[in-house]
Amino acid sequence: MRMKRKGILIVVSGFSGAGKGTLMKQLVHVYDNYALSISMTTRSPRPGEVEGREYFFVSRETFEETIAKDGLVEYACYCDNYYGTPKEYVERQLDQGKDVILEIEIQGALKVKEKFPTALLLFVMPPSAGELKKRLVGRGTESIEVIEKRLKRASEEAEGIEKYDYIVINDQLNECVLRMHALIQSAHDTPFRNEEFIENMRKELEAYR
Amino acid sequence: MRMKRKGILIVVSGFSGAGKGTLMKQLVHVYDNYALSISMTTRSPRPGEVEGREYFFVSRETFEETIAKDGLVEYACYCDNYYGTPKEYVERQLDQGKDVILEIEIQGALKVKEKFPTALLLFVMPPSAGELKKRLVGRGTESIEVIEKRLKRASEEAEGIEKYDYIVINDQLNECVLRMHALIQSAHDTPFRNEEFIENMRKELEAYR
Repeated sequence: MRMKRKGILIVVSGFSGAGKGTLMKQLVHVYDNYALSISMTTRSPRPGEVEGREYFFVSRETFEETIAKDGLVEYACYCDNYYGTPKEYVERQLDQGKDVILEIEIQGALKVKEKFPTALLLFVMPPSAGELKKRLVGRGTESIEVIEKRLKRASEEAEGIEKYDYIVINDQLNECVLRMHALIQSAHDTPFRNEEFIENMRKELEAYR
Repeated sequence: MRMKRKGILIVVSGFSGAGKGTLMKQLVHVYDNYALSISMTTRSPRPGEVEGREYFFVSRETFEETIAKDGLVEYACYCDNYYGTPKEYVERQLDQGKDVILEIEIQGALKVKEKFPTALLLFVMPPSAGELKKRLVGRGTESIEVIEKRLKRASEEAEGIEKYDYIVINDQLNECVLRMHALIQSAHDTPFRNEEFIENMRKELEAYR
């Protein structure tokens, strides 16, 4: 029989405004095999943010200790604050068979892939650039300057799409969640994510050589 | 909007007795986006075989002409007869958006991948070697010698599994058909099978640079 399968580390990137957040929330809500990774940060909690839900809030000292003992899947420093992904939580979830989702931009995504070669990299895109702009404008929360900055950033990020395993085109939410689930589950069936199963099959077959 | 998508060339290999034939027949029966490739051969039709259904039956001269004008996706020579995959039929189906399925052993599969880098290679396996033997014995049509030969062959073929994109574990037929369909459809979402869509997105986004 097939062995108990280990989870996959899933890295989700994509344009701001592509709907990553909603997509992942819906995915975790609909299927029970996913866990969202929670980041560690040295920045202060904002009103309403809860320790261990939005982030693990730690001191700079604790963060640097965690770096020193290789306790992070990846980390980065923005605006004088550290942000990173604690390895222990991720590995515990993976061992329990959960597919762990990590939202992160491209540089971080590539670092994760280096450390976890079986990580699955997904890039979320709207069906068109026009639709992206429409969504950013439609939010009604951002100034024209911020929107233009995000579109410019999208244009830069688009350079790296080929580094990802799959693109996820977020046209209609529920359909997109179904597709995303299907492709993550398919990723479980690649030979390099089934080394143990294949090795066992080979050993069994050797009896007939 | 997303463009009309081209089909994927799917190469299916796997152990004799893993149930490839039944699996593919069921897949084509249940979903309408698949076409089975039909091989060309120089061997004579057997009773009940129909031209253009089991094979295209041609003369050695015609076959060699087809080789000369690069008209085959791949070909091989067994027992003094040629067997090959006519390129024209495959390309016409792909252009119409059909996913074309080709059943072929590993050497042929790798040749196809060289010529069609976007081909998807699937390796069909039973859930265990014991199950494989059980199925071969259960057919009741083969002698012990033939069964042992097939198991020996399976042991050799198992060496090449890592060359494939996915393994397909055929435990329960209908479930396996669903999984196979899901993973083929997921393969449509890789960046290198969506170059045109990505290029268009980049061009559109450039306006915001």
